[in-house]
Amino acid sequence: MMMKRSEKSGLPPGTLVHIGKKKAKEVKITLIDYDEVHFEKKELKTIEECFVYKEKPTVTWINVDGLHQVEILEKLGNCYSLHPLVLEDILNTEQRPKMEDYGEYLYIVLKMLEDNNKTNEILTEQISLIVGSNFVISFQEREGDAFDPIRERIRSGAGRTRKMGADYLAYTLVDSIVDNYFVILEKLGEKIEFLEEKLVNQPTSETLQTIHRLKREMIFLRKAVWPLREVINGLERGESSLIQQSTGIFFRDVYDHTIQVIDTIETYRDMVSGMLDIYLSSVSNRLNAVMKVLTIIATIFMPLTFLAGLYGMNFKYMPELEWRWGYPAILLLMLMIGGFMLIYFRRKKWL
Amino acid sequence: MMMKRSEKSGLPPGTLVHIGKKKAKEVKITLIDYDEVHFEKKELKTIEECFVYKEKPTVTWINVDGLHQVEILEKLGNCYSLHPLVLEDILNTEQRPKMEDYGEYLYIVLKMLEDNNKTNEILTEQISLIVGSNFVISFQEREGDAFDPIRERIRSGAGRTRKMGADYLAYTLVDSIVDNYFVILEKLGEKIEFLEEKLVNQPTSETLQTIHRLKREMIFLRKAVWPLREVINGLERGESSLIQQSTGIFFRDVYDHTIQVIDTIETYRDMVSGMLDIYLSSVSNRLNAVMKVLTIIATIFMPLTFLAGLYGMNFKYMPELEWRWGYPAILLLMLMIGGFMLIYFRRKKWL
Amino acid sequence: MMMKRSEKSGLPPGTLVHIGKKKAKEVKITLIDYDEVHFEKKELKTIEECFVYKEKPTVTWINVDGLHQVEILEKLGNCYSLHPLVLEDILNTEQRPKMEDYGEYLYIVLKMLEDNNKTNEILTEQISLIVGSNFVISFQEREGDAFDPIRERIRSGAGRTRKMGADYLAYTLVDSIVDNYFVILEKLGEKIEFLEEKLVNQPTSETLQTIHRLKREMIFLRKAVWPLREVINGLERGESSLIQQSTGIFFRDVYDHTIQVIDTIETYRDMVSGMLDIYLSSVSNRLNAVMKVLTIIATIFMPLTFLAGLYGMNFKYMPELEWRWGYPAILLLMLMIGGFMLIYFRRKKWL
Amino acid sequence: MMMKRSEKSGLPPGTLVHIGKKKAKEVKITLIDYDEVHFEKKELKTIEECFVYKEKPTVTWINVDGLHQVEILEKLGNCYSLHPLVLEDILNTEQRPKMEDYGEYLYIVLKMLEDNNKTNEILTEQISLIVGSNFVISFQEREGDAFDPIRERIRSGAGRTRKMGADYLAYTLVDSIVDNYFVILEKLGEKIEFLEEKLVNQPTSETLQTIHRLKREMIFLRKAVWPLREVINGLERGESSLIQQSTGIFFRDVYDHTIQVIDTIETYRDMVSGMLDIYLSSVSNRLNAVMKVLTIIATIFMPLTFLAGLYGMNFKYMPELEWRWGYPAILLLMLMIGGFMLIYFRRKKWL
Amino acid sequence: MMMKRSEKSGLPPGTLVHIGKKKAKEVKITLIDYDEVHFEKKELKTIEECFVYKEKPTVTWINVDGLHQVEILEKLGNCYSLHPLVLEDILNTEQRPKMEDYGEYLYIVLKMLEDNNKTNEILTEQISLIVGSNFVISFQEREGDAFDPIRERIRSGAGRTRKMGADYLAYTLVDSIVDNYFVILEKLGEKIEFLEEKLVNQPTSETLQTIHRLKREMIFLRKAVWPLREVINGLERGESSLIQQSTGIFFRDVYDHTIQVIDTIETYRDMVSGMLDIYLSSVSNRLNAVMKVLTIIATIFMPLTFLAGLYGMNFKYMPELEWRWGYPAILLLMLMIGGFMLIYFRRKKWL
Repeated sequence: MMMKRSEKSGLPPGTLVHIGKKKAKEVKITLIDYDEVHFEKKELKTIEECFVYKEKPTVTWINVDGLHQVEILEKLGNCYSLHPLVLEDILNTEQRPKMEDYGEYLYIVLKMLEDNNKTNEILTEQISLIVGSNFVISFQEREGDAFDPIRERIRSGAGRTRKMGADYLAYTLVDSIVDNYFVILEKLGEKIEFLEEKLVNQPTSETLQTIHRLKREMIFLRKAVWPLREVINGLERGESSLIQQSTGIFFRDVYDHTIQVIDTIETYRDMVSGMLDIYLSSVSNRLNAVMKVLTIIATIFMPLTFLAGLYGMNFKYMPELEWRWGYPAILLLMLMIGGFMLIYFRRKKWL
Repeated sequence: MMMKRSEKSGLPPGTLVHIGKKKAKEVKITLIDYDEVHFEKKELKTIEECFVYKEKPTVTWINVDGLHQVEILEKLGNCYSLHPLVLEDILNTEQRPKMEDYGEYLYIVLKMLEDNNKTNEILTEQISLIVGSNFVISFQEREGDAFDPIRERIRSGAGRTRKMGADYLAYTLVDSIVDNYFVILEKLGEKIEFLEEKLVNQPTSETLQTIHRLKREMIFLRKAVWPLREVINGLERGESSLIQQSTGIFFRDVYDHTIQVIDTIETYRDMVSGMLDIYLSSVSNRLNAVMKVLTIIATIFMPLTFLAGLYGMNFKYMPELEWRWGYPAILLLMLMIGGFMLIYFRRKKWL
Repeated sequence: MMMKRSEKSGLPPGTLVHIGKKKAKEVKITLIDYDEVHFEKKELKTIEECFVYKEKPTVTWINVDGLHQVEILEKLGNCYSLHPLVLEDILNTEQRPKMEDYGEYLYIVLKMLEDNNKTNEILTEQISLIVGSNFVISFQEREGDAFDPIRERIRSGAGRTRKMGADYLAYTLVDSIVDNYFVILEKLGEKIEFLEEKLVNQPTSETLQTIHRLKREMIFLRKAVWPLREVINGLERGESSLIQQSTGIFFRDVYDHTIQVIDTIETYRDMVSGMLDIYLSSVSNRLNAVMKVLTIIATIFMPLTFLAGLYGMNFKYMPELEWRWGYPAILLLMLMIGGFMLIYFRRKKWL
Repeated sequence: MMMKRSEKSGLPPGTLVHIGKKKAKEVKITLIDYDEVHFEKKELKTIEECFVYKEKPTVTWINVDGLHQVEILEKLGNCYSLHPLVLEDILNTEQRPKMEDYGEYLYIVLKMLEDNNKTNEILTEQISLIVGSNFVISFQEREGDAFDPIRERIRSGAGRTRKMGADYLAYTLVDSIVDNYFVILEKLGEKIEFLEEKLVNQPTSETLQTIHRLKREMIFLRKAVWPLREVINGLERGESSLIQQSTGIFFRDVYDHTIQVIDTIETYRDMVSGMLDIYLSSVSNRLNAVMKVLTIIATIFMPLTFLAGLYGMNFKYMPELEWRWGYPAILLLMLMIGGFMLIYFRRKKWL
Repeated sequence: MMMKRSEKSGLPPGTLVHIGKKKAKEVKITLIDYDEVHFEKKELKTIEECFVYKEKPTVTWINVDGLHQVEILEKLGNCYSLHPLVLEDILNTEQRPKMEDYGEYLYIVLKMLEDNNKTNEILTEQISLIVGSNFVISFQEREGDAFDPIRERIRSGAGRTRKMGADYLAYTLVDSIVDNYFVILEKLGEKIEFLEEKLVNQPTSETLQTIHRLKREMIFLRKAVWPLREVINGLERGESSLIQQSTGIFFRDVYDHTIQVIDTIETYRDMVSGMLDIYLSSVSNRLNAVMKVLTIIATIFMPLTFLAGLYGMNFKYMPELEWRWGYPAILLLMLMIGGFMLIYFRRKKWL
């Protein structure tokens, strides 16, 4: 999980080393430059191509997919005069969500979640955003199409984005990430419902494993979402001059969604804990049922076997053995004992 | 539960899509306009009819039942210049209770609870309130008569409502929703008491299911009520100029009720947890009882069966078998062993 | 518990309806009027008699026992110009403790606790106090003698009360209520100690019921006492001009007592939880003991019974059966097996 | 525990009654008066002897052992004009630690802990300190030598005390009490370690009792130490003009120690909870072991006994019984069945 | 754990006594003095050698390994005029992490963690830092090479350190300690993963011991790391004039790492608790499995043995015994009973 983090221990602070798995094959840089009337989109061969946009008043969005080419980051850092610690943090994908105000720009770390359909696990990807007065730089670990609808909206001029500044662009990016959490939550909700049904109908020891796995996924999710609350709260309160008042209202909306996500996670946690309780008490109940069967069988057959054994003794003088109706009498007695036992257990509601 | 929420992921913010089930067949718009001397009530065919009331100094209350006709909302939004995010939130019925101050108006989201008598489940309905200086717009998901007593009170001029402004009207609406929670709580309280009695007299594995269901209902209720605290606290503190000082005192009263509702929910939660403990230990106790029966039976009959088996052996030289009183002697011995066992168990308080 | 609360849902706010059981037969109004030199006490026939005292500079204490005559409250409310919501809250005895500052007067709600000796249950009674600059009005649900020592102290001029204002009178009333909690707590402490002893010596399934009942009483107590903390803290901080600085110090003392009460309740809760743990593990231990008895018996007699059965077989050619010492030899073998088992179990500390 | 507290309920506030056990035989008053050059120590016969020191600029430390002579306290209270509530609190030894600023003096309540070696219980003693500008009055319930090292240090002039004011003296007293907690904690730590070893090697049902007793001691300790945090924090922040800046640093040190004590108590609590878990699961494990023995025995001997019973039947036509090798064959079969069972259980890791 | 702490109880505050184990053989003092152009490193024979560097504007780093020579500390304390309580705290290695601002210098206490490979335990070492305007004094309990990479970096002039002041040096020291926590965490993470695999495949009672040990290590770690949060937060906020604004940003980075460490510890705690749940329910499941085997065996063989016993009775008139096909018939009946039982258990999913 934190495998590579320790290898950096001992290096001077600010050393640029990519921590985490290399998830993208090639680094891909996409630039979008727009204002209300103008729109330009191109894929960059070299990072230097984007430097000319820095001084333009238009909003520039540079998206970098893949983090393993450290020199690209260094050049970007020089051009936009980013703090070395920011560059270091972008490369360290074990970050927790946070927002840091460096005056000239905001540095935002978020976690994109993705439900891997094959392994049925939740994957995370770290998204770093640098938000300046007229630019947004976003870093993704892996080539993804999560931001494609936003690109399309900017191109077509739908929505508000073209009319507003870089802060609004940052908002749409954050919003699309938080929106994505609902997709994950719904899948989780379905899993929980499915599990609950199974728990009632046929709990196996495998069910416990699944409950436990769900619990861990929840811990995982929580870790990714909880800090977000503070991050977006910070953006909403509009303490930074880079976020305009009018955009603050939109961030308040995202904040509400985040609270809703957290609420739902907590509810799910409660539900999963409840399922554990049910599982454990159903195990106890089954033990009870097993023991009842054993006890009923033993209580009926032990006295009968004793009686049979009694008349299997070889004493010379056992008058009953000689009686004409001894055998039927003993059979009748046995039937009565068995019957009495059955009535007794029925009374006790064991049958 | 959040089924439709994810479908919106990817759409630009502010897109008006109705999220949630369509609960009303037709959209029904009711307008009430009043001041101390004047009262007017009509059902509107088209939403445009209400626009003329906007400029009047009288208090206008527009109630919209049913959310699926997005264009009505759009027109209202244009007329009263509501923020696009407010319109979006009104349509998204998965909201948690909140209060947002937009300067010109307050936007309040609440949850109306209803106990469905057929399915024995608690249903929620989202109520959105727009409170301006001289108007209140309320949105309900479903046609309901929850606000009827208020309408009647306004008509008849009973109570304070006719003499006061739109903020007081908002208060009566919120108050009637919170009052309604007590009805739900009392039903829940009855269920808990009924369950408790059953738990003492005859706990079944179905009891556990019921405890669990109650627990989930409580989680559900909590989720609906907890955020209310903050909402009403915000209204009470009178931070908004739309809420007059004198109305603030009334909101303080609602705040007290909300705290009382939360308190009761927490008490119920504690009680239901206690019931789970009792259930589990009663399962253990019953296991103990079963095992005692088994042990008593086995402990009495195993030695006796052994003895019987002993004298059922076919050794040629077994002098006891020849004795005249061998059989009665062995019967006596068996009786003594059995009696001794019974005394032993009585001593141990097993019988 | 909240039975009547729901019946009010739908009525306009400020409607005076008595919620709760009618606990007093007749309404009884007692008036005490005093300053340092003067003392007057009378029982009133009609509430109007007390109105003349309103303008006097002396401290007036009006005590009303019984809440079911709504018109008395209405008249008092008119005379002292109390807010309709205050009157409504006085009648609603499901209130939680609170303090509200209405400028002209403070409204304080407290819970008086009483241990019913017959049913062994804790009863609560709601005490409402209206504290003005020169008057205190107290409302009790039931005729009680809780305030008699205070009346006697005022009459005899003992203590500080006669020399000080209405705020000090309010303090003595609050103080006597909180002092009363210690009596309840000590009784609860005795119950816990008694139960603990019983738990060690002879736990029965009834013990569990008692633990559970204690737990519920604690939840109940907590609900009554926790909010008090805030109430008295509010009085202590002297934010209201009605509470003089010198009286604030006395309220600080009551605050300490409240904290002490809360502390003790929390300690009791911890102790009762600990008892539940002990009970459950003693149940497990007893199950273990039962199973050991069963296992020992089965382990000793099953092999012996098998051996006996073996030589009870009817094969024609079983040489052992013909041996002269076969029977004694098999008896010896059986003794050895039994003895070995006993030694084995002793080694395993099962005996 | 709170036995006597309730007896005071009903008395007017400020009544001086000694609550708690009389722990000292005689009241002993010791006076120490010092400045940098001067030192005087005497044991007082009457409390009046100390009144002359009040006006002197030297630091006066009056220590009173034993609280049952109320008139001594009254005289001291008059001389140093202490608030009646302070005097009441000094006599009420059920106080929780607190600090109150009365302007002219500070009133501090602390708990001295002592480990009774005989009963193995932790005893508490209430220490009250009155800290003025040039005097400290300390009240102990019982004659003790806890402050002797401090007296000796003042006499010999070692350390800083002689050069500093009454606030530093108060600090050394508080410091010595907090230092004492570490002694108690270490003893507790040893008990826990001892118990843990026993838990691994040989858990008995008595172990559970000990765990529970430890838990209660911890609750007890917590109650005594937690409020201390606030008390000393209040002294450290130097809000009172009676505590000089330079002494504040020393109180910060005591604050650190208090936090450390609280930390250790919390760690111990976690450890004791962990021990309970281990105990409970070791009980389960032993049950499992017992059941395995029973099951193995039953599974081996039940089929064998059945076989023996089969050939003990008295049917006329049972050809096997006549066979020459019938008996050896059946013995072989039985051996095989038994062996197979043993192999099966070994496979299942039950043996 | 706190063995030696109690021995100090009774000594005057500020007494210099080394509390804790003597972990280093000899005290070793290393001095590094540098600015942007100049670098000097030497090992000191006597502590007096470093006093000349005090007045130099260059940054001086004095590192002391081993605390048992109290006089070295006293001399250093005199030279740099450290507060006696600081010296006392440096020697008391049972400190919790803290930061104290003495105006002229900051006193920082940290815990260095080390995973002992032999005993598999986590060891702690207390690091004390004195940070002045142009000097840093660090105290280690034991000779270690944890700071060697920093020394090397200063020597070679790599990184920022040579260009910046004493506060940046303090930052690199703190950073290297926090970085080290990740190494410990990763080892812990591996242990947890290993344990989890074992738990699924083959849980033994030893597994429980390991879970418990892990839990304790986590408590231990938490105790060391939690207070760090506050410490570094204090440094980050730049309240002290000794920490420059530009260094504050770096401390914010360390703060993030600390939060990440705390987060991970909490996640691990959750995971270990989950493992305990799984362990306990797997014990229950195994008990269930054992009981099923027993019940199946008993339920099959008890009726059969009874039947065999029945026909082993010696009654004179038992017609079945005489029948030609009696024996085969009874064998068939037994087979049918056994088969029916097996089908029944398969239906119940016990087989």
